[in-house]
Amino acid sequence: MKIALDVLGGDNAPLSTIKGALAYLEQSGDSAPQLILVGDSSKIEQILNSLNGNTSKIEIVHTTEIVGMHEKPSRIFREKPDSSLVRSIQLVKEDEAQAVVSAGNTGALLATSLFLIGKIPGIRRPAFAPFIPSNKGGFILCDAGANADCKPVHLVQFGLMAGAYIEHLEDRPNPRVALLNIGSEKVKGNELTSTAYPLMEEHLNNFIGNLEPRYIMDGKADVVVCDGFTGNIVLKQTEGLILHLMSWIQERINVHSAGKDPSPVFSQVFSDIQSNLDHEEYGATPLLGINGVVMKCHGSATARGIKNSLLAAQKTVEENLIEDIADRLSSHSDIFEENNKLSETNPV
Amino acid sequence: MKIALDVLGGDNAPLSTIKGALAYLEQSGDSAPQLILVGDSSKIEQILNSLNGNTSKIEIVHTTEIVGMHEKPSRIFREKPDSSLVRSIQLVKEDEAQAVVSAGNTGALLATSLFLIGKIPGIRRPAFAPFIPSNKGGFILCDAGANADCKPVHLVQFGLMAGAYIEHLEDRPNPRVALLNIGSEKVKGNELTSTAYPLMEEHLNNFIGNLEPRYIMDGKADVVVCDGFTGNIVLKQTEGLILHLMSWIQERINVHSAGKDPSPVFSQVFSDIQSNLDHEEYGATPLLGINGVVMKCHGSATARGIKNSLLAAQKTVEENLIEDIADRLSSHSDIFEENNKLSETNPV
Repeated sequence: MKIALDVLGGDNAPLSTIKGALAYLEQSGDSAPQLILVGDSSKIEQILNSLNGNTSKIEIVHTTEIVGMHEKPSRIFREKPDSSLVRSIQLVKEDEAQAVVSAGNTGALLATSLFLIGKIPGIRRPAFAPFIPSNKGGFILCDAGANADCKPVHLVQFGLMAGAYIEHLEDRPNPRVALLNIGSEKVKGNELTSTAYPLMEEHLNNFIGNLEPRYIMDGKADVVVCDGFTGNIVLKQTEGLILHLMSWIQERINVHSAGKDPSPVFSQVFSDIQSNLDHEEYGATPLLGINGVVMKCHGSATARGIKNSLLAAQKTVEENLIEDIADRLSSHSDIFEENNKLSETNPV
Repeated sequence: MKIALDVLGGDNAPLSTIKGALAYLEQSGDSAPQLILVGDSSKIEQILNSLNGNTSKIEIVHTTEIVGMHEKPSRIFREKPDSSLVRSIQLVKEDEAQAVVSAGNTGALLATSLFLIGKIPGIRRPAFAPFIPSNKGGFILCDAGANADCKPVHLVQFGLMAGAYIEHLEDRPNPRVALLNIGSEKVKGNELTSTAYPLMEEHLNNFIGNLEPRYIMDGKADVVVCDGFTGNIVLKQTEGLILHLMSWIQERINVHSAGKDPSPVFSQVFSDIQSNLDHEEYGATPLLGINGVVMKCHGSATARGIKNSLLAAQKTVEENLIEDIADRLSSHSDIFEENNKLSETNPV
């Protein structure tokens, strides 16, 4: 197995990215796959020399162009064909690598993957499926932002794909799939969710019905399905509200401690919560539905985040996630084909 | 002025509701409006006697039917015409009262108000507009659940109505109105938000653009506008996540304190946060767009919540909110009429 690593993507590239690669190789030892570091070769070599790591499992693919975080995603593969992002994905397309890991521009990663690799046959829309940690076990949120407007059939596919993913990634057999909704009864919600509910009930193995956002952190579901607009709202609100509350608590502690050292219990409590919620622990988010393993790391990923993303990519390849999704899909192909036609003429 | 109070609505009815009424009258003194307690008169009299409060400003309207929290909202006004909820709204319709306060079934309150009182002329959809407290000042979230599917013109009206409301309620002149969205750029979002953006820009006085949910607690906007599905998701996630995090912190404190009394600073910090986030402090949520003052209390409102809701209702009447919304709307009537037609034929 070979994994391509986009060395120039992300806020901490290329130094942290290369550190993460070396940490991954060190942890994996002899069983490590070959890593292809994609980016400016002279920079990569310089950093590898300075870090003095074992480079026996490292190849370098030299690229000359840079993708910024604010370039128009849909144009990257045409305008920056020799960027580390596009070349990394190209390696997967040409089967030179079995997976790609990148902390670069999310939209560019998605658009380029769609253009070069394409979708798993039968899949209507690829989706973002980040793992949201919680002290009750965490869950996959899908779609978390790839598709701002969705149809019911997309939600069914998100449930199938994310269910397969968490089953492999977290070893959770027969994962519980819930529909994010504003009420628990079947008929609740907007037109999208109330139409999707009976479809999900029919086509998902372990569909547990509607889940209100009040309870998403409580470990009631392994996969929470929604349209990408709602998912992105939930993702950003979760991150924002936790940060807000933690800094507010810190501020009140300072006020009430009045110059004295606060109890050491505070820092223990904060450290427990931060380490549980740490997105770096869970590595990258797969672009589910792409016909190849494309893993997106958080833009601010450090070496540890990159290392864990490479581990997640390796596991995703080893467990044949793409083939598994294709299999699961094929047993529901009738409904998807039928609904494809319905959806084209009667958009919800 | 007279305010009708639905004595039988809510989890703590009728005792806490009546206690709240007496607390309100005591606080307001001679300037208090007349209160009409609507419900089972013998129960009301019995409680008033046992509480030994001043009843000189209290009238009672006797009703015989009870509305459950799970009855079909759209049928209540036909099936339970002699319930405290329906009779309270009837009093506003007949101008026997200038406002109604209820902690009863939200859907029933909305459907009955729509049927009996109707909408402010020009308003397409009434909306829920709760005040969401935060340590940075709080904001009105509109719509928070009355309309699961919305069109762009509805969002413009939500902005106008909620802006007028917070201007009166919290004395915030020229409130900043934001569109809840998944990116800050104008073109971001789903079809609804990207179509609504230019309309809001054109028709709202102080439209500050898109606001990502990451920042909603940071005091950047006075009004946050969204469709009712998204708003209800945000409302329930905010409540749920705060509760989840606080109980998690409590659990970790217990673990690290290991049987010893934790620092007294903890309880001071918790108390600060709880009192700031306390929804009872802000009383009821108006059903914006109804052509009369209808205030919905939290189902779990205690006497203090009822008292503050009555204060909010009184202020809403005194400041002529309904007339103010009608005025603001009339200066934009062209766009709404034009868009009404557009929306009917081209639903978004």
